[in-house]
Amino acid sequence: MTHRVRVFAPATISNLGPGFDVLGLALQQPGDVVEVEVSDKPGVQIVEVTGAGNRLTTDSTQNVAGVAAADVLQRIQAGEKRAVVGVRLWLHKQMPLASGLGSSAASSAAGAVAINELLDNPLSRKELISSALKGEYIASGSAHADNVAPSLLGGIVLIRSYNPFELVSLPVPPDLRVIVIHPHFEVETSLARALVNEQRYELGPVVTNLGNLGAFVAALYENDLGLFGRSICDRLIEPTRAKLIPGFQNVKDAALKAGALGCSISGGGPAVFAFSDNDRGAASVAQAMCEAFKISGGLDSKAYVGLINTRGAHTVTQDT
Amino acid sequence: MTHRVRVFAPATISNLGPGFDVLGLALQQPGDVVEVEVSDKPGVQIVEVTGAGNRLTTDSTQNVAGVAAADVLQRIQAGEKRAVVGVRLWLHKQMPLASGLGSSAASSAAGAVAINELLDNPLSRKELISSALKGEYIASGSAHADNVAPSLLGGIVLIRSYNPFELVSLPVPPDLRVIVIHPHFEVETSLARALVNEQRYELGPVVTNLGNLGAFVAALYENDLGLFGRSICDRLIEPTRAKLIPGFQNVKDAALKAGALGCSISGGGPAVFAFSDNDRGAASVAQAMCEAFKISGGLDSKAYVGLINTRGAHTVTQDT
Repeated sequence: MTHRVRVFAPATISNLGPGFDVLGLALQQPGDVVEVEVSDKPGVQIVEVTGAGNRLTTDSTQNVAGVAAADVLQRIQAGEKRAVVGVRLWLHKQMPLASGLGSSAASSAAGAVAINELLDNPLSRKELISSALKGEYIASGSAHADNVAPSLLGGIVLIRSYNPFELVSLPVPPDLRVIVIHPHFEVETSLARALVNEQRYELGPVVTNLGNLGAFVAALYENDLGLFGRSICDRLIEPTRAKLIPGFQNVKDAALKAGALGCSISGGGPAVFAFSDNDRGAASVAQAMCEAFKISGGLDSKAYVGLINTRGAHTVTQDT
Repeated sequence: MTHRVRVFAPATISNLGPGFDVLGLALQQPGDVVEVEVSDKPGVQIVEVTGAGNRLTTDSTQNVAGVAAADVLQRIQAGEKRAVVGVRLWLHKQMPLASGLGSSAASSAAGAVAINELLDNPLSRKELISSALKGEYIASGSAHADNVAPSLLGGIVLIRSYNPFELVSLPVPPDLRVIVIHPHFEVETSLARALVNEQRYELGPVVTNLGNLGAFVAALYENDLGLFGRSICDRLIEPTRAKLIPGFQNVKDAALKAGALGCSISGGGPAVFAFSDNDRGAASVAQAMCEAFKISGGLDSKAYVGLINTRGAHTVTQDT
């Protein structure tokens, strides 16, 4: 039987609090799965895409998982680290599109890691970031690493610089629980980005985000969850994107009233995240947020509650 | 003989690298000295101001040290923590005005700490910040704490939020040396601020500063001086204020070429700071920067080189 590798890559929260385009973290669930096996046809051939209601192409030059996988394959071939002609790829979408949870990043990361695993890991996880970013670029027309990097590496990741590319993996407080509520509603990523790209920003909100970003990082090192919660404060981007999400302010108010450590928009939305320092509190916060989405936004929603995923993308057995 | 308290408060670098209005650190030198003693005349009476070429008033309602001292005195009187009618105050300016080194903050901090010391320290250092900010406000028409807080507390301070006020004292890497070059040239603080306040900022430079601010904080906790140096990157404010300082770009280039870990403008300028991880390197960087100011800007300058002051404002003996 042909050797087949199966990789899960997690959903991620990008634009985390004050850290637009620079902070992201990995969730335990949801995420996407990519399977690959060696083929004697050159390049990457996408056999099947399941989930996502047939909205994604099997054209490997247009599918994010295919693009990321092909880039990894070419790099390995170019380095003659392991000669294979091509691969067959299956993409199992297990998370919503246009949700603000890094759907395309998860598919890209899964595609990149799957090829690398299949060929005995010649490239490091950090080396895979540029390949996964090529997948992201196909999806969104811009390449921001705050979804791709945490999906690949796990944990909480800060992007210091894009040119040259440099990231910092930040400490993950062991008690931190993350709550993500995904209302059944889509926000077009390109619209969410265009709105904030077009704006010019006053110095006041910039200073607010700078102060809170520094406090966010300090809080992780100090394991100070009170400070962490107070630092989830975004005066730059949240005010604009909140308008795209029905009921957002009430959902946020409900989260904080239920004891959340902080609350804001995940990626370009409509998913909304919050934090807690215990399981019971996290469950209460999730319930309050779902109810607020129903009452104020008229939206059903799905809650994901758990620890931060410190492992990143990883192989799974066929049965998972 | 009447009991007299003598307090030194250090100069500070504010707007440190990516952290406009939110990051500051305390220097060993220069700084200001305030002396106080109990008086039976009500309020604060400024007996004398030395230094600063007679440019500062002895009117205690208009002098930053007098305003800060009077506020501390009133708070202590209001709390009935220690009843004294008034104090006499001497201000010894030992650092340049309009230098970008927090001259007014040092005077304010020294005034606030001196009264508190005279009355056996009923207020904590953090409690003194609001009084010192009142002094700052008289000087600059705006109250930013990134000079006052490090002058009072020492070390490297992050201001998370102004309303409510919250700061975080960050770790100081033991090997870190700071170089400050003060060219003999004045930049009007209010002009330096007006230029950056009037602007509106594109998202790209904002994101650059956010990423570098996070890396700056992480580098301090990791004691990673390479990362620390790379994070001294300000694409928001430096480009505008650099134009006010003759020869700035050449001074910065000279610092980096001489091995500095990073280099940018101190406060509103014209002082320029850099970092090194050893004494010899710091001396070379200082020399290169002074030469560049002379050649490119036609300016003589004074160099201050040393460790970060982790003690903050403190009492000194008469002879210091």
